[in-house]
Amino acid sequence: MSSGTGLSTPPALQPETCRIVPLGGIGEVGRNMTTFEIDGKILIVDCGVLFPEEHQPGVDLILPDLDYIRDRLEDIVGIVLTHGHEDHIGAVPYLLRLKPGIPLIGSTLTLALIEAKLEEHRIRPLTLAVKEGDTERLGPFECEFVAVNHSIPDALAVAIRTEAGTILHTGDFKMDQLPLDGRITDLRAFARLGEEGVDLFLTDSTNAEVPGFTTTEKEIGPVLEGFFARAQRRIIVASFSSHIHRVQQVLDAARMHGRKVCFVGRSMVRNMGIAAQLGYLDVPEGILVDLKQVDQLPDDQVVLMSTGSQGERMAALARMANGDHRIQIAPGDLVVLASSLIPGNENSVFRVINGLMKLGADVVHKGMAKVHVSGHASQGELLYCYNIVRPVQVMPVHGETRHLIANGRIAESTGIPTENVLLTENGSVVDLTAGRARVVGEVECGYVYVDGSSVGAITDSDLKDRRILGEEGFISVITVVNRQTGTIVSGPDIHARGVAEDDSVFEDVKPKIARALEEAVQANAEHTTHQLQQVVRRTIGTWVNRKLRRRPMIVPVVLEA
Amino acid sequence: MSSGTGLSTPPALQPETCRIVPLGGIGEVGRNMTTFEIDGKILIVDCGVLFPEEHQPGVDLILPDLDYIRDRLEDIVGIVLTHGHEDHIGAVPYLLRLKPGIPLIGSTLTLALIEAKLEEHRIRPLTLAVKEGDTERLGPFECEFVAVNHSIPDALAVAIRTEAGTILHTGDFKMDQLPLDGRITDLRAFARLGEEGVDLFLTDSTNAEVPGFTTTEKEIGPVLEGFFARAQRRIIVASFSSHIHRVQQVLDAARMHGRKVCFVGRSMVRNMGIAAQLGYLDVPEGILVDLKQVDQLPDDQVVLMSTGSQGERMAALARMANGDHRIQIAPGDLVVLASSLIPGNENSVFRVINGLMKLGADVVHKGMAKVHVSGHASQGELLYCYNIVRPVQVMPVHGETRHLIANGRIAESTGIPTENVLLTENGSVVDLTAGRARVVGEVECGYVYVDGSSVGAITDSDLKDRRILGEEGFISVITVVNRQTGTIVSGPDIHARGVAEDDSVFEDVKPKIARALEEAVQANAEHTTHQLQQVVRRTIGTWVNRKLRRRPMIVPVVLEA
Repeated sequence: MSSGTGLSTPPALQPETCRIVPLGGIGEVGRNMTTFEIDGKILIVDCGVLFPEEHQPGVDLILPDLDYIRDRLEDIVGIVLTHGHEDHIGAVPYLLRLKPGIPLIGSTLTLALIEAKLEEHRIRPLTLAVKEGDTERLGPFECEFVAVNHSIPDALAVAIRTEAGTILHTGDFKMDQLPLDGRITDLRAFARLGEEGVDLFLTDSTNAEVPGFTTTEKEIGPVLEGFFARAQRRIIVASFSSHIHRVQQVLDAARMHGRKVCFVGRSMVRNMGIAAQLGYLDVPEGILVDLKQVDQLPDDQVVLMSTGSQGERMAALARMANGDHRIQIAPGDLVVLASSLIPGNENSVFRVINGLMKLGADVVHKGMAKVHVSGHASQGELLYCYNIVRPVQVMPVHGETRHLIANGRIAESTGIPTENVLLTENGSVVDLTAGRARVVGEVECGYVYVDGSSVGAITDSDLKDRRILGEEGFISVITVVNRQTGTIVSGPDIHARGVAEDDSVFEDVKPKIARALEEAVQANAEHTTHQLQQVVRRTIGTWVNRKLRRRPMIVPVVLEA
Repeated sequence: MSSGTGLSTPPALQPETCRIVPLGGIGEVGRNMTTFEIDGKILIVDCGVLFPEEHQPGVDLILPDLDYIRDRLEDIVGIVLTHGHEDHIGAVPYLLRLKPGIPLIGSTLTLALIEAKLEEHRIRPLTLAVKEGDTERLGPFECEFVAVNHSIPDALAVAIRTEAGTILHTGDFKMDQLPLDGRITDLRAFARLGEEGVDLFLTDSTNAEVPGFTTTEKEIGPVLEGFFARAQRRIIVASFSSHIHRVQQVLDAARMHGRKVCFVGRSMVRNMGIAAQLGYLDVPEGILVDLKQVDQLPDDQVVLMSTGSQGERMAALARMANGDHRIQIAPGDLVVLASSLIPGNENSVFRVINGLMKLGADVVHKGMAKVHVSGHASQGELLYCYNIVRPVQVMPVHGETRHLIANGRIAESTGIPTENVLLTENGSVVDLTAGRARVVGEVECGYVYVDGSSVGAITDSDLKDRRILGEEGFISVITVVNRQTGTIVSGPDIHARGVAEDDSVFEDVKPKIARALEEAVQANAEHTTHQLQQVVRRTIGTWVNRKLRRRPMIVPVVLEA
């Protein structure tokens, strides 16, 4: 496999060359976004968010770095959204804030979901609804849309024909041969495009480390029904709030066993409203009830369809586990986690499970029963895919390094030469000319953190501060000095938080700080405030490190009277 | 199952009653410790540490709460250590600091490992080495030791005979029928004890949620050898530094394929030194080399046996992944993670794997090949165990709530009545009288945090402060007021860290704070400093929340001039 490590500034874009730059989703699972440029026009595929890990504390969301296109907004011909998951559409509001008029192209459901989101941001987008089989010309790009099957309905792959060559981008996909809605990944279209010639194939790497084939969604229904048949009291099912097919299976099982269903959690209520209205969710007449009605129903006639399957602290399920929700869990209640377990969420999810079990609930999760299947193609399906498309070159996308490399190896095993598998990073610049793609350089491509109302204001250095504060706390030392007399007027006052000692422990060090400061002021009246603060920092820092064996953040403040 | 929820202060301990109090290991995986008391004497089984989760930031270790026995140290007849893992022996130094003379009872290897640890704390313990089949009288307790098989050699279960009844405590165990050292869990002894009558059976719950049987250790060797046979360059194997049998398999495979082995990481070097010296590790003549010698050897003659399998930031493997270790990973190196993945460590481990792969290494882990098996009995083995012992009552230990409940259900499925399965919590007080055990109350039992040089000084409130600081940062506001004139002499000075804004953003709010303070001072000269600080807190707190949509910690300091 070939990668662009060590390359730097890319050359100027040549005519008849299509430049491809991933701005997110490479080396990470989330914030998927790729730009395609030819003849001075830019096409974007997806614009998603990434959820922060524990080393990014306090961050709400992470966006792709839009700097690369910030001065080129006028040249953007459109944003193709392959499907409606947050990691593919979540950053659209932030891009449209920069220029509201950029057209959004996607399937009916995808557009409905992004429009609902944009409404919260008070943005009304320009949209172009497409469906499988459609071809649209967007500036120099001819885009053909292909049905793919995923864990949300109405997902699309996109073939992008340019004068530099043809690119096929799978989006997120799997190849369930018996999907609930009968809409399979269109391998006949993949085959036809392959016959025509796919020069560069961008493929979903998420499950490239998983051997075999992803289980069909159809196997989930009977398992759920089995649990519904045996449950004596309330049933609570938690899943992703966009997993319309999973919710459909819950509705079907509920109808079969004479239970009413109540949607719990804001995003669940909103998404299922949209899905039902557009015909993606078939809601049996009279089956839905609200929380108030739940109180009136016997326990064995109730299903709560809830958010919170990832152990999110503020979601309905975690609050039920804490006894902090209107729905009080009682012995015999059955909780089904019909969802995956995203790495990093294990402790939160297990805390919720332990809490539910302590209250007497039975808890079923995918470790114990087939109540969830992945939305991504495993190694088996990826092999089919490469053998059907037979692309000239492959660029694995959507995944951490380990996923990208695994996906590249699968491509190689189908006969694609090593040098034709492009391993990239976010910001890699790939030029496609006369059907041949090469990594020619890289552009700056950082993390953009959303925190509260700020976008991009937090830096990695702020996060480092937060990590230190979070692990070690801080000590603030305030002293008022009089430079004329060379004496301390007030202080040192010491305030510590998270340092785990009674503040009285600092009495020892106060005289040391006072002495060091007075010596410094008397030695040189010209010392800057910063220099005096450094004296304080050194004095207490050394002391704390030796006495408490810790390294809290030290905030010395020297005021003058 | 019966649990003691709602119970409070236990009654006075009656004669001929054995009181059992778990001080750790119930509702959590780690800090295992149980006390047994009869006739005024106390026996302790295990005394381990718990490793902190992400909601306990900056904490080094968590100890069992020793308050329950703090005033009774003279009455302790001994500490039985079932095996040498940290979660069973790690807190011994903290208990021996309170009273160094308490005897430690355990197998040769277990004692060697705790003695090495105690040496670092400069404590020389009293020890009593025992082996399977031995019976020792410790005050009113007659202890019989039974061989059990686990992921460290020389582990023991302990049967405790008292005049109140007989208790059997498995320690951590599995039932590998083909262990490397041929030392199987002694089910004949379990059967004999069962015939004699086990009134209360304390059983390891760690794998009670895992269906089927734990794979035998013997299956790992050939898989490792296969990788060794195919590897072209260096091989790096990472595992727990106490997993002597895994290291034995690596040594064997290395010898077979003409490679030298270098131990990397302080605990690996130390533990393997002890194991080799005591004959638990069979080190082929001349196979060991040190890091300096590794540099001289061809790549295909090298195995590095390393720590860091859990992605620990400072361990050898993570530093190799960062290019920050003397061993520079190069394309074609093979890294084998021969270890489990402890929940909560996923992101760290995957970060290490991604880093290694980016440098060109091939990485194999237990998700892809059988390079590790668990050290705990799964559901299949637990069934055998209950059917062989046929205890009167069962008290699941070692596990989170979900594990304890699963273990209890396994016991019930073998015919043990529901009311004879005791679900407890740390601090539950279980009285065994005439062979019948009941939960009779509970004692205070908190978390004791070790942080730097402090033990127990950090409180949950300090951790809450750290979580807020870590997620939101802090804003400190310093103002010097003159109460006589009712004016601000200096400030407000604002210092923010981790709040992610240029400090200039606070210029807006400074006049508001000044005005609010002056009004407060002028309105009532009697306001305490605390009241004035509350005025500052409210003013800036409201502003930050509305303007930045955040809730950092606010530290208002009002000084008087």
